[in-house]
Amino acid sequence: MTELAEVINEHSTGVIVTDPPRAEAAAVSALAGYGVATVHEALGRTGCLGPGLRPIQQGVRVCGTAVTVLCRPGDNLMVHAAVEQCREGDLMVVTTTSPCTDGLFGELFATALQARGVRGLVINAGVRDTAELRAMGFPVWSAAVCAQGTVKASPGSVNVPVVVGGQVIRPGDAILADDDGVMCVPRDLVATAVQAAVARTAKEEASRAAFAAGELGLDRYGLRETLERLGVRYVKAEEHDG
Amino acid sequence: MTELAEVINEHSTGVIVTDPPRAEAAAVSALAGYGVATVHEALGRTGCLGPGLRPIQQGVRVCGTAVTVLCRPGDNLMVHAAVEQCREGDLMVVTTTSPCTDGLFGELFATALQARGVRGLVINAGVRDTAELRAMGFPVWSAAVCAQGTVKASPGSVNVPVVVGGQVIRPGDAILADDDGVMCVPRDLVATAVQAAVARTAKEEASRAAFAAGELGLDRYGLRETLERLGVRYVKAEEHDG
Amino acid sequence: MTELAEVINEHSTGVIVTDPPRAEAAAVSALAGYGVATVHEALGRTGCLGPGLRPIQQGVRVCGTAVTVLCRPGDNLMVHAAVEQCREGDLMVVTTTSPCTDGLFGELFATALQARGVRGLVINAGVRDTAELRAMGFPVWSAAVCAQGTVKASPGSVNVPVVVGGQVIRPGDAILADDDGVMCVPRDLVATAVQAAVARTAKEEASRAAFAAGELGLDRYGLRETLERLGVRYVKAEEHDG
Amino acid sequence: MTELAEVINEHSTGVIVTDPPRAEAAAVSALAGYGVATVHEALGRTGCLGPGLRPIQQGVRVCGTAVTVLCRPGDNLMVHAAVEQCREGDLMVVTTTSPCTDGLFGELFATALQARGVRGLVINAGVRDTAELRAMGFPVWSAAVCAQGTVKASPGSVNVPVVVGGQVIRPGDAILADDDGVMCVPRDLVATAVQAAVARTAKEEASRAAFAAGELGLDRYGLRETLERLGVRYVKAEEHDG
Amino acid sequence: MTELAEVINEHSTGVIVTDPPRAEAAAVSALAGYGVATVHEALGRTGCLGPGLRPIQQGVRVCGTAVTVLCRPGDNLMVHAAVEQCREGDLMVVTTTSPCTDGLFGELFATALQARGVRGLVINAGVRDTAELRAMGFPVWSAAVCAQGTVKASPGSVNVPVVVGGQVIRPGDAILADDDGVMCVPRDLVATAVQAAVARTAKEEASRAAFAAGELGLDRYGLRETLERLGVRYVKAEEHDG
Amino acid sequence: MTELAEVINEHSTGVIVTDPPRAEAAAVSALAGYGVATVHEALGRTGCLGPGLRPIQQGVRVCGTAVTVLCRPGDNLMVHAAVEQCREGDLMVVTTTSPCTDGLFGELFATALQARGVRGLVINAGVRDTAELRAMGFPVWSAAVCAQGTVKASPGSVNVPVVVGGQVIRPGDAILADDDGVMCVPRDLVATAVQAAVARTAKEEASRAAFAAGELGLDRYGLRETLERLGVRYVKAEEHDG
Repeated sequence: MTELAEVINEHSTGVIVTDPPRAEAAAVSALAGYGVATVHEALGRTGCLGPGLRPIQQGVRVCGTAVTVLCRPGDNLMVHAAVEQCREGDLMVVTTTSPCTDGLFGELFATALQARGVRGLVINAGVRDTAELRAMGFPVWSAAVCAQGTVKASPGSVNVPVVVGGQVIRPGDAILADDDGVMCVPRDLVATAVQAAVARTAKEEASRAAFAAGELGLDRYGLRETLERLGVRYVKAEEHDG
Repeated sequence: MTELAEVINEHSTGVIVTDPPRAEAAAVSALAGYGVATVHEALGRTGCLGPGLRPIQQGVRVCGTAVTVLCRPGDNLMVHAAVEQCREGDLMVVTTTSPCTDGLFGELFATALQARGVRGLVINAGVRDTAELRAMGFPVWSAAVCAQGTVKASPGSVNVPVVVGGQVIRPGDAILADDDGVMCVPRDLVATAVQAAVARTAKEEASRAAFAAGELGLDRYGLRETLERLGVRYVKAEEHDG
Repeated sequence: MTELAEVINEHSTGVIVTDPPRAEAAAVSALAGYGVATVHEALGRTGCLGPGLRPIQQGVRVCGTAVTVLCRPGDNLMVHAAVEQCREGDLMVVTTTSPCTDGLFGELFATALQARGVRGLVINAGVRDTAELRAMGFPVWSAAVCAQGTVKASPGSVNVPVVVGGQVIRPGDAILADDDGVMCVPRDLVATAVQAAVARTAKEEASRAAFAAGELGLDRYGLRETLERLGVRYVKAEEHDG
Repeated sequence: MTELAEVINEHSTGVIVTDPPRAEAAAVSALAGYGVATVHEALGRTGCLGPGLRPIQQGVRVCGTAVTVLCRPGDNLMVHAAVEQCREGDLMVVTTTSPCTDGLFGELFATALQARGVRGLVINAGVRDTAELRAMGFPVWSAAVCAQGTVKASPGSVNVPVVVGGQVIRPGDAILADDDGVMCVPRDLVATAVQAAVARTAKEEASRAAFAAGELGLDRYGLRETLERLGVRYVKAEEHDG
Repeated sequence: MTELAEVINEHSTGVIVTDPPRAEAAAVSALAGYGVATVHEALGRTGCLGPGLRPIQQGVRVCGTAVTVLCRPGDNLMVHAAVEQCREGDLMVVTTTSPCTDGLFGELFATALQARGVRGLVINAGVRDTAELRAMGFPVWSAAVCAQGTVKASPGSVNVPVVVGGQVIRPGDAILADDDGVMCVPRDLVATAVQAAVARTAKEEASRAAFAAGELGLDRYGLRETLERLGVRYVKAEEHDG
Repeated sequence: MTELAEVINEHSTGVIVTDPPRAEAAAVSALAGYGVATVHEALGRTGCLGPGLRPIQQGVRVCGTAVTVLCRPGDNLMVHAAVEQCREGDLMVVTTTSPCTDGLFGELFATALQARGVRGLVINAGVRDTAELRAMGFPVWSAAVCAQGTVKASPGSVNVPVVVGGQVIRPGDAILADDDGVMCVPRDLVATAVQAAVARTAKEEASRAAFAAGELGLDRYGLRETLERLGVRYVKAEEHDG
């Protein structure tokens, strides 16, 4: 029964994992040069956390290494524990064991994190002090904005794998976020992601120029054949009683 | 069974209708001088697409003739087909056969559309590259913002009637959109809508001046009688244990 | 059966309560010096209306005394009746007997309210004319933005207790709203709330300075003991197969 | 300006259209022999009203000709007007001009409709008296179950085209509903739909026998080629670190 | 500052109110003879908790006096405290300070409550052990069904006023629930509600007989005049291009 | 760049993993003797897929080893591929790369799976043919019920880790489902889970007997001390103006 005790212990009383391996810092910083949509495409359309996490600011893009935090709903004790685990270049990722819209995070936490060089927050719950956070330039992507406060009464974990927006985020993974939302790049894949983004960007630039000059995607991507293969027909409006 | 084959063909393999009749261009441009709320009221409270379509920018109002696009979820092949059907003064309207939040549209499409004089996009799905779209001044109203990419594998239709936000939109209808959302004016009704908006605006201006001067809607609209007919009573607070 | 008739009368035909007691004006104005999150915490985490009411503008904070309005869905007759009950320093609070996203309120109402010195609107339904409202500086927090218009056909009430966001709001209560959302402070508690906010703000300022200097919440709030009591363990990453 | 008056009149004060053409009765009855999923597929995957309309009973399938009703939210006046327009073999379809969950329909209406031979109700709003409706065998598909009552104060329309679940429903169209939800078959297409359902059912029966005998869809539908064309690879688990 | 301390104490550490006044038992039991829709209408359309609380069983109606429980999300400590406050004829009403879908209640609680003569549960959160609860005949109306467990770590209150589904529920109020949902009748109004339900039922029976015999609501309720006053027109289908 | 090609290949064109290790069959079958709530608690409150997956039937509990399927929205090609990978004792788990409510699964698939000894389906999308599925005794838990059909055009994966309801499910994990929803037990932990469930059940039985006999959880679990430590006070109703 030792094993059972361990399992229960791990899950019900929580664990704080220290010094997890992190994605290589230079690659993480380089990745911030590319948008979420571009990198997501460049990696075969993976890692997107979906439409549920929205920025509280506009026009900001950041990339940092994840320090993951698993709280119970309405309880931000583990965010306090996680601050100590953060270092320069990190980005905090907070989620809860059940859905929660309470404001688990505000400007005091941001002050502490900014002092440690943390680049931002992704929180699958609520955030508050949003005016102050914008004023201090600490970027946040959240599932809700809500002033509702929390307690510090229940255990949780820091730097364990968490699931946000249907994606598994492991400590040390690179988190890239901008106006389009948030994505996760596994820590072993960040350098590859930069390469892929470079290639994708070049391709996009060529397409942009072509489209600006009037070329059609139908021709550029060979989609007329696709339409024909699928049986899509062209009909003049006067012959079609739409 | 020929008829059945036709029905199935139309719906399952799609059709691209070319050169649909469009609302008269001058009337469409004139309509852009009036807000969605005003025109909606002026036409007897019709055509509003509801609260689900939100602008990605602030302070922009456009009116254009609809080029409608019906895609399958997670597939933007037909948006490519639709670009070719767009001309100066159009506004693209995209929806999917099932609910979808993926980013079916981004700045490359916007580049192509802007080159053709298209005025904006209404999309009952997700949009991405929102920072870039704002920067290039291509206005979008969408059901979601999401970086999630799509495939180009399934058939759909262009310039068939579509339903968005509970409203039927036919190709060539006028689409008016601003910070309050989106509305559709049937193509045969646009000139009438402009007339109605002019009248409504005059009426609103008079009311605005009256309200600014302290007149009450109760008096201006004869609503005291309505309250009395309905039996609404006035009670002093000290007589009412609220 | 008289009693039954009264009950039904009160609820089905509505009542307009005049001159309800209001929170003391100076205290209400003083409360506007503090954020929703701060006051909510200072009062033991009470009064927050949740994440569902969002501002249509950014960076505005107001506090006013509630004039409450209970409408039927899709009907704004009682908003007209309520305007007359508003005075300098009030803030209008509108809700409906069933969920509703229609635009029950727009710039004409705002013009009338601004002329009477009303400080803003909280509406558990839709608002429209949002560009105009921002331009005229009339702040609004709403459950939706929607151009859909309404009728003036059904009875309702003014200055009765209403429920918005799970909170009971009585006429004359103080309503505080900013970028984080909306909260209600009962009218007898406003002076206390100001005191509490002063104390809380001082405490937050000290914490902010400490956190900026690198102190940890774990130490400042004695949370290491909490973690230990709860059994949360520290494990090095290399010993934990996360 | 006559035209404008007409437009506004039509939309803001409503119209009751009498004796619309209806789908042929025998075909409608025959269609009830087939499930919604089957007929939807047989017609090229069209007409499905989506997952939002759920039955209040289990194991019932009906098909009837639509009498459409457009109400304002929280108002069932037009349901009364619509009862008179119903006849043997009809099925009532109710929606509202804005989203609404109130109980617009209950057992008294069902009693009146049952007396006229109406086969059921599809309501894009709330229903109440659900226990009684089940007991009397009057089937209902609704967007909500809610006891909240309504008024009879605002105009609307009967037998005009309405949109429910993203589908346009015209008076006289066939509405088919079972445990999987609701679909609409345009009135001119019902006989074709029966033919298509017969063919589809035969095909499904053959597939069912084959699958019961262990045949794979991969082989039966030639999907191994599709997988290969798309580049899907087979990998043994021991070679894949999943 | 004593007052502030009291306010904070009340809200942040909770209170268990013992022996609140309860609605008269005989009237509560009598009310169970009438449906939620009927009583809701009979009292002028008040007290309905809306479509969000659904029964886990079918065909059960109960009425009991409320023992109210206010928990923090994910924490059922106060449900334990509340059991002791329950007596014969009560019905437990549980809500949380923030939205929560966790399973705060299961069959062990139901066993304890059934032993005390409690008639059921209304919970604005999740419930679990639903198969067992149905088997033991303990009726539940809930906002969610979910196996997710909870902790017992945070304070809350018992027998204070709570808000569920937009309605204020005070301890001792009568809670009536059936397949249509849940309503609250203030404890001083229960006898009146029974009277009103008797009258309403008689009226409904007469209407039912009339409708079964083919009478129309248009005639019975004088609604033809309403339609005419509102300007609703009758048009033959052949004259109306619907 | 080989690595990048591999990454993209894996994610964009999919992979079918054959013969993954599965949880031990006897333990999986034994686990079906315990409810989801019980096992979830016994393992330290882990593995619950939340309130979003609901059964289409009532009173059924199953446990099987997961065959995971990752489809694109509106496309069930990979379900066909997955059938071949299923064997006696498995349970199919389907999800999509983006949210989807279409009916990806129906009775023909169930026929094929039943022929292979598969115990049921968990689908984070829509299901159809629900009446037929109930009739044939093939249990399903789904995110939606919807007749909307799908195509077979896009690649995906079989037997890769997937995320459903915030939980990671690996091929071969044990999936336990009943009226309370669905949970996942990692394949290495199933025997431990059975042990834990046995212990938990014994504990629950003792508690049930105690509660039936009138004992209070406050006493049985020592919660009076918790209440006191947290400062929860008891107040008589007449001293508390609730």
